[in-house]
Amino acid sequence: MNVNNPGISLIYRLELANSVTTFAKVASLVGVTGGDIIAVDVIRVSQDIVVRDVTINVSNRDHGKRISDMLNSEPGIRVVAVSDRTFLVHLGGKLEVSPKIQIKNRDDLSRVYTPHVARICEAIRDDVSKAYQLTIKRNTVAVVSDGTAVLGLGDIGPYAAMPVMEGKAMLFKQFAGIDAFPICLDTKDPDEIVRIVKSIAPAFGGINLEDIGSPRCFAIEEQLRKELDIPVFHDDQHGTAVVLLAGLINATKLVKKDLSDLKVVIVGIGAAGVACTKMMLAAGVTNIIGVTLEGILHRGKDYDIPAWNWYKEHTNPANVQGTLADAIVDADVFIGVSGPGVLKPEHIQKMARDPIVFAMANPTPEITPEEAAPYVRVMATGRSDYPNQINNVLCFPGIFKGALNARASTINEEMKLAAAHAIASSIKDEELTEDYIIPSVFNQSVVEKVADAVSKAAYESGVARREIHHTDNY
Amino acid sequence: MNVNNPGISLIYRLELANSVTTFAKVASLVGVTGGDIIAVDVIRVSQDIVVRDVTINVSNRDHGKRISDMLNSEPGIRVVAVSDRTFLVHLGGKLEVSPKIQIKNRDDLSRVYTPHVARICEAIRDDVSKAYQLTIKRNTVAVVSDGTAVLGLGDIGPYAAMPVMEGKAMLFKQFAGIDAFPICLDTKDPDEIVRIVKSIAPAFGGINLEDIGSPRCFAIEEQLRKELDIPVFHDDQHGTAVVLLAGLINATKLVKKDLSDLKVVIVGIGAAGVACTKMMLAAGVTNIIGVTLEGILHRGKDYDIPAWNWYKEHTNPANVQGTLADAIVDADVFIGVSGPGVLKPEHIQKMARDPIVFAMANPTPEITPEEAAPYVRVMATGRSDYPNQINNVLCFPGIFKGALNARASTINEEMKLAAAHAIASSIKDEELTEDYIIPSVFNQSVVEKVADAVSKAAYESGVARREIHHTDNY
Repeated sequence: MNVNNPGISLIYRLELANSVTTFAKVASLVGVTGGDIIAVDVIRVSQDIVVRDVTINVSNRDHGKRISDMLNSEPGIRVVAVSDRTFLVHLGGKLEVSPKIQIKNRDDLSRVYTPHVARICEAIRDDVSKAYQLTIKRNTVAVVSDGTAVLGLGDIGPYAAMPVMEGKAMLFKQFAGIDAFPICLDTKDPDEIVRIVKSIAPAFGGINLEDIGSPRCFAIEEQLRKELDIPVFHDDQHGTAVVLLAGLINATKLVKKDLSDLKVVIVGIGAAGVACTKMMLAAGVTNIIGVTLEGILHRGKDYDIPAWNWYKEHTNPANVQGTLADAIVDADVFIGVSGPGVLKPEHIQKMARDPIVFAMANPTPEITPEEAAPYVRVMATGRSDYPNQINNVLCFPGIFKGALNARASTINEEMKLAAAHAIASSIKDEELTEDYIIPSVFNQSVVEKVADAVSKAAYESGVARREIHHTDNY
Repeated sequence: MNVNNPGISLIYRLELANSVTTFAKVASLVGVTGGDIIAVDVIRVSQDIVVRDVTINVSNRDHGKRISDMLNSEPGIRVVAVSDRTFLVHLGGKLEVSPKIQIKNRDDLSRVYTPHVARICEAIRDDVSKAYQLTIKRNTVAVVSDGTAVLGLGDIGPYAAMPVMEGKAMLFKQFAGIDAFPICLDTKDPDEIVRIVKSIAPAFGGINLEDIGSPRCFAIEEQLRKELDIPVFHDDQHGTAVVLLAGLINATKLVKKDLSDLKVVIVGIGAAGVACTKMMLAAGVTNIIGVTLEGILHRGKDYDIPAWNWYKEHTNPANVQGTLADAIVDADVFIGVSGPGVLKPEHIQKMARDPIVFAMANPTPEITPEEAAPYVRVMATGRSDYPNQINNVLCFPGIFKGALNARASTINEEMKLAAAHAIASSIKDEELTEDYIIPSVFNQSVVEKVADAVSKAAYESGVARREIHHTDNY
């Protein structure tokens, strides 16, 4: 089943009258309606009745309802309940907060709480840097959102954003062993968000900003980076940029071009587009042309959006004007962070040899891999059902792990570049193919590689604050 | 070892030269210095050398140093390292945040994160009350402090307060299965604290305010209770008050008096004193006299402290004036939330028959149990090394569990009263003695009893919002 057009997995609890019907009948009815049985469990058997849980993949709720109705209309079959597997895994939320050690007796209690804990408090009061040794700060990240730009859903508010932030926290723990806690804010005021995040920062070793709408995300991140002494990282911008660059490094290696010689056209100059551009500039790409709905961004025009005025000053060295059709001529790389259908086959035909296309609009890319296939050499998307998925999960667990390990005060360009190179290098040269420029999110070596490289970059760029002891791993 | 004068548990790593010394020598040296060996582990044995970890209870750091020096001066013994067990359990903090389910493959990933999670977000966007079913809100409490009144340490700031809040979160999980997360705020401005807590509230089903200085704690709690639709509970006030009332209920039962007939004198009219008074008034006590350093609070005087002016209007029905010596005559109960030495034996001698004394100042009570013994009938303190410890751990896990189970919008007087009665009733009438009016914090039945009673009170008082289904436990 395509996870980008994912359908639904439903569990039907069926009461089957032994004398009247058989499971084969159920299977056949479900098959007729186009449902896909993926699991069957017997719940209870009595003389006359068998109760079974049948898990069926369906296209949508209506489809599920049709199957339910058809089963109910059959003599000997009763649908007792229908549950949605995705809802089931969300019941009561997806995270728990647990003690690392059990309190078994009064002695334990006196050590983790009063009266002994007072000595720990005093040690931190006298030297605040000890918070990194003696509290959860060392390994804890806040996943902060105001719920204004969640997935493709837009401004759904802090309550509805929670399941995404809980999911993100799960990924932090599962992929990097980092304890992350979701903070969904019931305010959209950027100054207020900055004040709140600053105020809650003592418990945390890093701040992952998530799904905050543009352009508010820029000011919030910039201000927090200035005022806090822990890493602040807006994943929607920088996570995407790091993974894109990793893919670009491997794609250019494959077509035997240098980053510094590339002509790159990028469509969609929002938060992610700007971050991708900055990342490429830092990596040595010089010829980048940004295209918006108003056309190519160039120095002959003043824009209402401050980011675009920054953009025109730092890209487009030849000051090209016009539209995508003009920009794309002889381009080596197309990057889309815009919307479906923006890139046409005839555009690709005008590109330089061995065209590289990153069509990252979600869920429908700027051009489908099928349409692009005859013309591109290397193609990547944001989707998990095609090769070369640009997925932030490749970046944020490792980059935060590296930053926390080094007790870094920030995540700087050097660390992001190191992360991109580490992700790219997790595919060996001899393994590189057009369909394999980006490692799988389940490749367990990626996180360690990224963390090590990021930590090293933190030390080399002077933002690491953890002293290196002989007994440490450094 | 007395946990209120607790000493320190140190682990000495010793390298012992086999040929020169024996463990018996070590034991004898430690004994001479007054150290108490409580555990010995062999770490490594080679032909000439044995490395042992010896855990020794000492009175304080100086004492620990003296032992170390003495051991080092002995031929054949080398102290390799000394670690403090309390510091060891705090390394890296005491909490972790974990996924409730493991992400094993892409299918799991797509369910807990994109793209399937979008349906969960939409369900909450369309009906925000679903946050209680589909996010951690159902079972999660924020432990919020500004670090201004931590233990006996005072204003030590948000970083140094963290170990206490982490400890509190551990207790929430261990005693009640509640997921609690510490939020230590880097601000002391009451309005700002209110704004922040309101903004972060979406993730939480309840707010436990902790160690916030008086009088700021009153305004913060009052405002938050007004503006939030989840329970807000300042444990330092109400937790103490609930457990005190539980003790008072059992003490009066033992001496065969009625709450409504009692004359109660309470010394120390701060946050806890006011809360204890309100709790007793709600429970039917009518004759309460408050005493401060300025004497008995009465209606003939105007006070600078607003809480005291409230107090004089709601207590002291006979408008008695004077000092503790005047107030205590014929009193049935003395309650101290003040400081050491406030209550003298001669005060108790002036009390009514079967004097009841709650001397809760920490670590040194208003009168020591030894001094009071000849005169009191029932005595309770805040200390764990005497019988009848008034310990908030008996209240907050159960009261929050009951509130969360009922999805209560607040914790009201009815729920607090129910909690006090539940704690009291966990000691059966036939078990009640002068030395056993308060159950142990490790009595596992207390939390369930409290939670059930509190939940019931929430329904009966109309603040429960969880619908009762046939399949639910209600």
